[in-house]
Amino acid sequence: MERTVDNRLFDLREDLLLMGGRAEEMIRRAVNSLLRRDSDLAARVIAEDDEIDDLEKRIDEEVTDLLVRQQPMATDMRFLIAAMKITSDLERIGDSAVNIAKFARVINDSPPVKPYVDLPKMAETVREMVQSSLNAFVQRDTGRARAVIERDQEVDELHDAIFDELQGLMEKDASLAAPGLALTFVIRNLERIADHATNISEDVIYFVEGEDVRHPTS
Amino acid sequence: MERTVDNRLFDLREDLLLMGGRAEEMIRRAVNSLLRRDSDLAARVIAEDDEIDDLEKRIDEEVTDLLVRQQPMATDMRFLIAAMKITSDLERIGDSAVNIAKFARVINDSPPVKPYVDLPKMAETVREMVQSSLNAFVQRDTGRARAVIERDQEVDELHDAIFDELQGLMEKDASLAAPGLALTFVIRNLERIADHATNISEDVIYFVEGEDVRHPTS
Repeated sequence: MERTVDNRLFDLREDLLLMGGRAEEMIRRAVNSLLRRDSDLAARVIAEDDEIDDLEKRIDEEVTDLLVRQQPMATDMRFLIAAMKITSDLERIGDSAVNIAKFARVINDSPPVKPYVDLPKMAETVREMVQSSLNAFVQRDTGRARAVIERDQEVDELHDAIFDELQGLMEKDASLAAPGLALTFVIRNLERIADHATNISEDVIYFVEGEDVRHPTS
Repeated sequence: MERTVDNRLFDLREDLLLMGGRAEEMIRRAVNSLLRRDSDLAARVIAEDDEIDDLEKRIDEEVTDLLVRQQPMATDMRFLIAAMKITSDLERIGDSAVNIAKFARVINDSPPVKPYVDLPKMAETVREMVQSSLNAFVQRDTGRARAVIERDQEVDELHDAIFDELQGLMEKDASLAAPGLALTFVIRNLERIADHATNISEDVIYFVEGEDVRHPTS
């Protein structure tokens, strides 16, 4: 028995949320591998990347098949376009989490550069942005999506403050070059994740408000 | 008089090539601003980012409108999906070029870290990959697309060699921290551009071979 388009759209939405949950978990564990100096945990995050790549591939193929073969209605079409874009951002979030885990292993091999103060705060803000952007998608909540976009500035400021501090430390002590470099890449990847959460939020607004445009009250 | 779908698809293809040409030009100029220590040129690249963002927005809106309102045929649908993905990669290539230009300004404010040898080679390889991936799209040439994907390894190796050399220099001389850091970000952004050219090439293969799948000879 062939599955209906509605069933397939329901499953697609579930897969997308599953992928979002995986991406969030990867961020959390990658940052923990750094904060707890746990390189085994970092190795597990790196190994998990295949799983999120497989999810992306599955969602992408399903979206393409629905678009090409089913001639979906305009409202479903817009959902499918948003799903394809969001999936691409989630895959790149997974890549960034893997990068963070790779740099964590380098950093964990050196003595601590400094106590982490702003970094856990930055990481938590970024993870919340990802979670919130996905909730905004599920609930079609453009207010929440706009709140995510506003937080991007906060993350940029944290990034710049930590970057300047690290560069200052490296300018005084050349022995900090390797772990200092790796830490600047960690915060750069966190900043990129925030950018992807911002992209997802923009897609949510476009998806939801596009629907309104298609259903004018006049 | 309403424009036909075919006319709109033709214009869309032209816009995509225009955007690709702009992205390539931004890479070339961003790298030149570094190699020639020309911070005015860097400032112009940074100012050009709006143009490529506007092109992305225009293409994205046109693709969405065609998908949602025109119920295109399967073959056009697959082209539209590829166009949307490629546009997203081109926009990110533009972002990376802007990042390179921003770091070039930092680097140009310090004495030269070392003569550039591998970096121009890396930059030229990356620019060729972008150009070649777009030609592969226009000519539906999966052989060319596969050749681009193979070159990604070459770029990764150049990145790692330059990174190790820079880190070695910074470990010996703390005064190189600021320009050294900035240079590692330049090569990181070049590597990311190569990843985007690889993504575009993968989309070309998917687009072309997906068509073959839809036209079986049996």
